[in-house]
Amino acid sequence: MVKEIWNENISREEERDIFQKKISFPIGEKNPYGEFFIGQSYLAPVSTDQVPVFNVTFEPGCRNNWHVHHAKNGGGQILICIGGRGYYQEFGKEPVEMSPGTVINIPAEVKHWHGASPSSWFAHLAIEVEGEETSTEWLEVVTDEDYNKLK
Amino acid sequence: MVKEIWNENISREEERDIFQKKISFPIGEKNPYGEFFIGQSYLAPVSTDQVPVFNVTFEPGCRNNWHVHHAKNGGGQILICIGGRGYYQEFGKEPVEMSPGTVINIPAEVKHWHGASPSSWFAHLAIEVEGEETSTEWLEVVTDEDYNKLK
Repeated sequence: MVKEIWNENISREEERDIFQKKISFPIGEKNPYGEFFIGQSYLAPVSTDQVPVFNVTFEPGCRNNWHVHHAKNGGGQILICIGGRGYYQEFGKEPVEMSPGTVINIPAEVKHWHGASPSSWFAHLAIEVEGEETSTEWLEVVTDEDYNKLK
Repeated sequence: MVKEIWNENISREEERDIFQKKISFPIGEKNPYGEFFIGQSYLAPVSTDQVPVFNVTFEPGCRNNWHVHHAKNGGGQILICIGGRGYYQEFGKEPVEMSPGTVINIPAEVKHWHGASPSSWFAHLAIEVEGEETSTEWLEVVTDEDYNKLK
């Protein structure tokens, strides 16, 4: 019989280690950009040559603040979900649910956020798209009021 | 009891449909570049904006010919295995086994091949790295003599 671990009182670190066994990419270290997130996220480099690719993992409830990838030309990000369940939302549009295989193109200058669902761990690869004069502008948090409408 | 489907006499198309259920990305259509492969491969676009990303699926025994991605600057490919088991080999080096989570940076001007193991289906994302004056030069096949040394 399968042990119903989800009914036990386990720590978030133990949950993280269980999620690590379910996904094929490293979870890595606590995200050094954590000040721009609500909840705990993790960051692991997947490719540091040619095109930078990172694996970003979010604990349940964790999401980044609204932000914009600025660029004069090119820039932005591509998200590729590789585990769990989460959301991507462009400002003024409905949230898009993400599960393994979901791919989201985020052009430069589009205000958006992404993160886990309230009840699931979530991981996506982030492909950093080359551009001229790139920068990221971090904006306001995704409020509990808005976020807690999501399942 | 789990039905031991791998002992039955099923077609490659049925095997492909079973593999599709195991991976999170579409297998897509028969690869239009099939003339440069031994065995059947499949190609599905995953991102057509910003940075082109494809999912490439190989039936057991399928591999592409030796080839070189030429570029004046930049170029090459990044491979990210998302299912099954296969190999990447740079000319003059030992083959590198690939399984889900394996990431390979292929700089421009490096002669190489990639493909399934003799006994497994295999799928990788291919990120096309932007470059100047890019082209792909297709060379000789990976001979059965060399390939059949692999497990």
